[in-house]
Amino acid sequence: MKGDSPRDGTGAEPRLSRASAGRLSLYLRGLEGFRREGLLKVSSSQLGSALGVTDAQVRKDLASLGHLGHPGIGYLIPELIAAIRRTLGLDRDWAVALVGVGNLARALLRYRGFGQQGFRIVALFDTDAAKIGQRLEGLEIHATDQMPAVIAATRAELGLLTVPSEAAQPVADALVAAGIRGVLNFAPVVLRLPAGVSLVSVDLAIQMEQLAFLVQMGGAD
Amino acid sequence: MKGDSPRDGTGAEPRLSRASAGRLSLYLRGLEGFRREGLLKVSSSQLGSALGVTDAQVRKDLASLGHLGHPGIGYLIPELIAAIRRTLGLDRDWAVALVGVGNLARALLRYRGFGQQGFRIVALFDTDAAKIGQRLEGLEIHATDQMPAVIAATRAELGLLTVPSEAAQPVADALVAAGIRGVLNFAPVVLRLPAGVSLVSVDLAIQMEQLAFLVQMGGAD
Repeated sequence: MKGDSPRDGTGAEPRLSRASAGRLSLYLRGLEGFRREGLLKVSSSQLGSALGVTDAQVRKDLASLGHLGHPGIGYLIPELIAAIRRTLGLDRDWAVALVGVGNLARALLRYRGFGQQGFRIVALFDTDAAKIGQRLEGLEIHATDQMPAVIAATRAELGLLTVPSEAAQPVADALVAAGIRGVLNFAPVVLRLPAGVSLVSVDLAIQMEQLAFLVQMGGAD
Repeated sequence: MKGDSPRDGTGAEPRLSRASAGRLSLYLRGLEGFRREGLLKVSSSQLGSALGVTDAQVRKDLASLGHLGHPGIGYLIPELIAAIRRTLGLDRDWAVALVGVGNLARALLRYRGFGQQGFRIVALFDTDAAKIGQRLEGLEIHATDQMPAVIAATRAELGLLTVPSEAAQPVADALVAAGIRGVLNFAPVVLRLPAGVSLVSVDLAIQMEQLAFLVQMGGAD
């Protein structure tokens, strides 16, 4: 995936780095787990040790959210969850358009993790004439030339790309032209998007390569 | 996903950090693209600008591979590809066992990116009696209690977890008991594995959260 690393040394960091944002997501998962177990408060060291992050790093990251620590108590879990969700932009719903209705798309449509965090897939697109007009999980599959109208009608802001590599760039361009503000790309290809449109790429082979690297290093992780 | 960040400040870094390993994977993708276009050599600034990494960072990362730069020429693409593949452990094949045969598994079985980098899925497991004994992409689906025998016979070293969250930890424990050395986890849950077994977690909702964060920041990326 495209991590924070490519931005190293560019001198154009946002308020919160992408690495910190990644850790905030991780803390959110941990805190939601604690809440499900009925806990109401947590210390930075409890949270850190549950997630493999140092106490100092947890305190530093959470300090960026404002004054949330209570001396002698730690953090109140509901308050901390709300602050992290607000910072990450998860205190609202995000409508998502998906392009490329194959097995991965079917898996993502049923992936409960998206809905839990406020991501709703509201529109499906494909170029395959045999799929267009069919319904999946209650959604109609549209032709890609209907993107401008469907994206405007559904108010989708994010695009999820599960098309083959060769289709990824033209489909991303079409999504951008139709008003999409950010793209989550699963195709194993480097996309070029205009300034002002965000991109997160999930290259599944890179994840596997990272695992092979760690195993080769002797399970150092 | 679990990035390099949780290791910040532990003082127990491997030779090459996980962030550098991630960038090496990214360079490898870029170089393979250049090679397909018929290029034979590349400069650090060409490679960097194609991938959104600074020239200085590219040179620093590639220096860790040995003396590969040729003054006045740059890098020879085939030589650089071979060096990166060797460093990442991709100069060999890796046999992979997959557990949990749903839509995501079907997508991953057909994902060409794995085979291109030497990852071969050699064994399938599921707990659903209706699936056990069926074949998919030429592989038989086995019951999970056959893990030790099948993993020994297929020499699988890596495990790919595409099971529901509640099954992830016990299945990971079973894979480790059967001799697996590294786990790529797609379940949205924090796994605990023994020392010496590597873990890379792909939390698809976290990828989406990172995208929402970037869009909210105003497309700063």
